[in-house]
Amino acid sequence: MITNTLHDALDSHADIQTLVKTLHPSEIADSLESLPETQRDRLWACVKQAKVLAYLSDGVRGELMQDMLPTKIAKAVKSMEIDDAVDVLQDLPDDKVEQVLQVMDLQDYRRLRQVLFYPEDSAGGLMNIDVLTVSTDITLRMVLRYLREFTTLPEKTDILMVVDSHNCYQGGLLITDLLINDPTVIVEQVMSTDLKAISAHLSAHDVALLFEQRDLLSVPVIDNQGILVGRITIDDVVDVIRAEADHNLMGSAGLDEHNDMFAPVLSTTRDRALWLGVNLGTAFLASYVIGLFEATLEHMVALAILMPVVASMGGIAGSQTLTIVIRGMALDQITPTNIPWLLKKELAVGILNGIFWAMVVAIITLLWFSNLTLGIIIGSALLINLCIAALAGVLIPLFLKRLSIDPALASSVTLTTITDIIGFGTLLGLATIFLHTF
Amino acid sequence: MITNTLHDALDSHADIQTLVKTLHPSEIADSLESLPETQRDRLWACVKQAKVLAYLSDGVRGELMQDMLPTKIAKAVKSMEIDDAVDVLQDLPDDKVEQVLQVMDLQDYRRLRQVLFYPEDSAGGLMNIDVLTVSTDITLRMVLRYLREFTTLPEKTDILMVVDSHNCYQGGLLITDLLINDPTVIVEQVMSTDLKAISAHLSAHDVALLFEQRDLLSVPVIDNQGILVGRITIDDVVDVIRAEADHNLMGSAGLDEHNDMFAPVLSTTRDRALWLGVNLGTAFLASYVIGLFEATLEHMVALAILMPVVASMGGIAGSQTLTIVIRGMALDQITPTNIPWLLKKELAVGILNGIFWAMVVAIITLLWFSNLTLGIIIGSALLINLCIAALAGVLIPLFLKRLSIDPALASSVTLTTITDIIGFGTLLGLATIFLHTF
Repeated sequence: MITNTLHDALDSHADIQTLVKTLHPSEIADSLESLPETQRDRLWACVKQAKVLAYLSDGVRGELMQDMLPTKIAKAVKSMEIDDAVDVLQDLPDDKVEQVLQVMDLQDYRRLRQVLFYPEDSAGGLMNIDVLTVSTDITLRMVLRYLREFTTLPEKTDILMVVDSHNCYQGGLLITDLLINDPTVIVEQVMSTDLKAISAHLSAHDVALLFEQRDLLSVPVIDNQGILVGRITIDDVVDVIRAEADHNLMGSAGLDEHNDMFAPVLSTTRDRALWLGVNLGTAFLASYVIGLFEATLEHMVALAILMPVVASMGGIAGSQTLTIVIRGMALDQITPTNIPWLLKKELAVGILNGIFWAMVVAIITLLWFSNLTLGIIIGSALLINLCIAALAGVLIPLFLKRLSIDPALASSVTLTTITDIIGFGTLLGLATIFLHTF
Repeated sequence: MITNTLHDALDSHADIQTLVKTLHPSEIADSLESLPETQRDRLWACVKQAKVLAYLSDGVRGELMQDMLPTKIAKAVKSMEIDDAVDVLQDLPDDKVEQVLQVMDLQDYRRLRQVLFYPEDSAGGLMNIDVLTVSTDITLRMVLRYLREFTTLPEKTDILMVVDSHNCYQGGLLITDLLINDPTVIVEQVMSTDLKAISAHLSAHDVALLFEQRDLLSVPVIDNQGILVGRITIDDVVDVIRAEADHNLMGSAGLDEHNDMFAPVLSTTRDRALWLGVNLGTAFLASYVIGLFEATLEHMVALAILMPVVASMGGIAGSQTLTIVIRGMALDQITPTNIPWLLKKELAVGILNGIFWAMVVAIITLLWFSNLTLGIIIGSALLINLCIAALAGVLIPLFLKRLSIDPALASSVTLTTITDIIGFGTLLGLATIFLHTF
């Protein structure tokens, strides 16, 4: 592991500079991300390759670029592919972006402006503008001759874009088709018209789904008038897929997907405090519900002992349903038509598991406390909570989405609030009704 | 949304067959995955494209293939790319695979055997064997002429593999280099020797990281003798990245990443029951701990009311740390060197947030129950639990990995067991010591 070697070197004060030179920018970026502040700054001072910036996560990049001069940023940005350059700039505060753009030469400035015009999470924000275009009416031999004039082609060129005289996208000429066809054939005869272009305004999420579904390597991007403005390559889409997956994973713990593993202690504490505060609120809500049954608890302390069982089983069952719905939403597999089907299925699973585990819990309770009524009460509370959990697991993310609240972030905390309250409430409520009378 | 249109059609008994013909196999696969059994079978009966199988998740594919005859499977498999074909076969029970292989013709059989030889989650299992090779000593003109003999090139060919007379991998000839260089140049002069081949035994996880770090489109695969055996293309790697991300997301809810959203109710109930059972065990463990302090609870029922606060705050704080470690492990960013640094940082964050929220909780408790000692006790318990949670969040996944237990699956349940027990134990323990004496 390269990261490992670098860490050891930093720990032993070995010659980092020589080591860094042998590494790929992405490996250096990985190492930077997995180091605490002091060691990170030491390593960063030895890094000469601007391309490292392109491989860093937003959080770490922002921190490292804070102290860079606009001229230095401009120089670094100039050496990158346009989409990476835009990524880097979009992390900077607006006034700093302006400073950087001001020290650039006009050509670079114009190129960057074209992409900066689009939101970061749209096709326009993901695209590269270095596109090779040919017209419909020339022969493949002319295309081959034209290509030979280049000393290098744009990275990951698998398709030449075919455009008309107004630069409107007509179709794609696959490089492999260029190679296997007779050179006297004209472009129009071999170009693929089923390589549809996408709008620059399509969301990054939809772009990623399209690439995944169609196994694409690159896609042409057009503006509202059908004019070719750029192309998106799969490597940038992989970053989107990774970021979306991280968002779903980290969101449920209230973390940002651009989280920096070694962000300073104080800012980390502050970032996490917010989430702890939200959860404290819900915890006290649960406490309030328990408090309503203070008299019952005083009467039978066994309830306090068994209380967490009902709440936690509801939380677990609900989170299973929830995870499936969150993932289905990420893959656009949840539709108005299949929601009722899903709801029915999850409820059925909840009832069946509810009945089974209710009996198990009832028997354990009977054996532990020698109280049949208590066993029946806790079993019933468990069954009710598992049914509610199934419904909540399906409905909460859908409901939050309709309210434009990010389901990946808020679903989990909302769910456990509900399963806690229902769990404590039904157990203590049923106990209040039945144990006081028996 | 295409999925949506199909769902509506199935619901309204419209003409599905015509609709299906207009769809991409991946869209049909998406629809099949998001339908319950009855509708899924109805749609499947209308599907004629074997390629749909390649796009289905393992769970759904297995279910649909259960009733297919070996001859039909063999025919479907024949029409697929070799890596997709192998994917499909690897989901079948061994005896059915043998039946399918027996009805295949010898050439297809041999091709499949080559890939089936390697484990599913290795480079060999991911690779395609349709590789274009050229030798070092021919001119680019000869290469161009050679390519023109094909009516089609293997999908996603961006590199021609350069091999010696023993089929040992020497380097890659980028198609773009083939296009821009003079046709009289020989292959050796323009081939890229820095396109390193990977071993067929490399794990799929490492293959995915390599593609992500190096922004690769394809990579040559060699066996132990350096013989070229195939190539891996980015589209298959995207599937690995998605599957790994799903594994991390779904593992913490005890779900399999190949989970079928509409698996039959009974098998779903059984699959989930296992996880609920594990969690019931840990919940009763927590109950047992609470039970140790029955006398204290009887003496002060406020403790029962506040109990969940300490436990849940520990669970939340711990899961924040845990999520960061699980993600770091997925990106290979956790090394023996940076574990102590991470531990120190997380503990510092735990202490700071612990102190802050301990004071908040103490004040709320004081106002609610007018009992200063109780406030101090619950604050102290919270602080202790947040510190333990930070340590547990870092150490549990590392410890589980060393025991070869999947951290994505078992970390979360282990963590909450610890934070529950510490949470309930410290609050009630401290209360037993201090409240009985004051």
